[in-house]
Amino acid sequence: MRVRLTLSYDGSAFSGFQVQKNANSVQGALCRALFTLCREEIGVSGCSRTDAGVHAKTFVCHSDLPFDEIPKSFLKSLNALLPDEIAVSDVSPVADDFHARYSAKEKAYRYYVWNAPFRAPLLSGRVLHEPRTLDLDAMNRAAEQFLGTHDFAAFQAAGSKVRDTVRTVTRCRIVRENDSLFYLEISADGFLYRMVRNVMGTLLDIGRGDPYDVPNLLLEADRTKAGRCAPPEGLYLWQVDYQ
Amino acid sequence: MRVRLTLSYDGSAFSGFQVQKNANSVQGALCRALFTLCREEIGVSGCSRTDAGVHAKTFVCHSDLPFDEIPKSFLKSLNALLPDEIAVSDVSPVADDFHARYSAKEKAYRYYVWNAPFRAPLLSGRVLHEPRTLDLDAMNRAAEQFLGTHDFAAFQAAGSKVRDTVRTVTRCRIVRENDSLFYLEISADGFLYRMVRNVMGTLLDIGRGDPYDVPNLLLEADRTKAGRCAPPEGLYLWQVDYQ
Repeated sequence: MRVRLTLSYDGSAFSGFQVQKNANSVQGALCRALFTLCREEIGVSGCSRTDAGVHAKTFVCHSDLPFDEIPKSFLKSLNALLPDEIAVSDVSPVADDFHARYSAKEKAYRYYVWNAPFRAPLLSGRVLHEPRTLDLDAMNRAAEQFLGTHDFAAFQAAGSKVRDTVRTVTRCRIVRENDSLFYLEISADGFLYRMVRNVMGTLLDIGRGDPYDVPNLLLEADRTKAGRCAPPEGLYLWQVDYQ
Repeated sequence: MRVRLTLSYDGSAFSGFQVQKNANSVQGALCRALFTLCREEIGVSGCSRTDAGVHAKTFVCHSDLPFDEIPKSFLKSLNALLPDEIAVSDVSPVADDFHARYSAKEKAYRYYVWNAPFRAPLLSGRVLHEPRTLDLDAMNRAAEQFLGTHDFAAFQAAGSKVRDTVRTVTRCRIVRENDSLFYLEISADGFLYRMVRNVMGTLLDIGRGDPYDVPNLLLEADRTKAGRCAPPEGLYLWQVDYQ
């Protein structure tokens, strides 16, 4: 039977979602726990490949389990077998053609920034610390220019081989949480590799005074013309919507 | 000159505020950094002695520095010398009779609880995880009964030798932040050793259905009659008010 697993994890403990040789991955931890529970190798497909250090408030996977129904204590046992940095909040049966990645209609990310002269020890590894003053209004005006359907080639990782680089961004704005903390909220039908970090890096450069012209960057579709890639620790996969 | 230092720290990295032999303390880290900056031994007095694992959103210390005025780059240099788990947000000159502990008029603590069947990896070490359902209304009704001036002997650590155990609680309530997260907010003119954790432990027992009678516990003044001591990881010194 196919199931959908909903989880969250602290990305600072992992080399990313995807299994890699000699590295601690979320997928690897899930596969090991499922192997113990099911007594056979179980594949796990994720909704995205988050990078090392990137967090997930919500992450969705699918797996095919060798059961007719989900055993009563399955969720509890799975959590007991997983490291503390991962928690599975739900396991539900889904249709056989459900795919964590390809069935997703929209994903939302947040990128958190602690913008104050001194670091925030209680948010260490959970936010980007930017000590310089940022022009949040300029960042928000630029963020709005990402809305809509565009070729995001300028904002994918250099060297990516994805052919279709057109995506539709349905939400892109800066939200101030308090005097020192704000986040970028961005939703789209899909994201290119490193797209959120490259968008955020460009917005941060704009906040510091760099005169980037977002519509032009999108038109030129040249990664070298856009801003830096923001570091992973502020980034959270926040929500994944299906159907 | 006497200065007031305002800091925050991640308590999970320390054996508490107070210097102890062979242990990593916040006070020890501050003294080492100040020694490097001032080239002489500098004493640091804190507003409270937080336990190992207890966090501080705001913590206040005072020190006597061998300067006539605070050097321009002092705050920046101090932060650069401190471990990442501590940040000093302010250093200000104060009157010679200012005392971080004895001049404090009111302190506020918060105790955060993640109340959901499964752990929250992104809040690990920052909240108490309580998987059982809690009766927050009963907890809030009991919390209100701590308000006012009472003998808190039943809520200080067993074996404490403080003589005057009367304190005035000016705020004590449960605040729900979202479906899974709530906190106790408690303010008083002073707190006995482990008082907040013992109050919270008793409230948690009440939330689980234990029929504690708070006014009677206060009257009896017997530590063995009250509830458990809640663990340190959910506790934050939140604010300290002077003048």
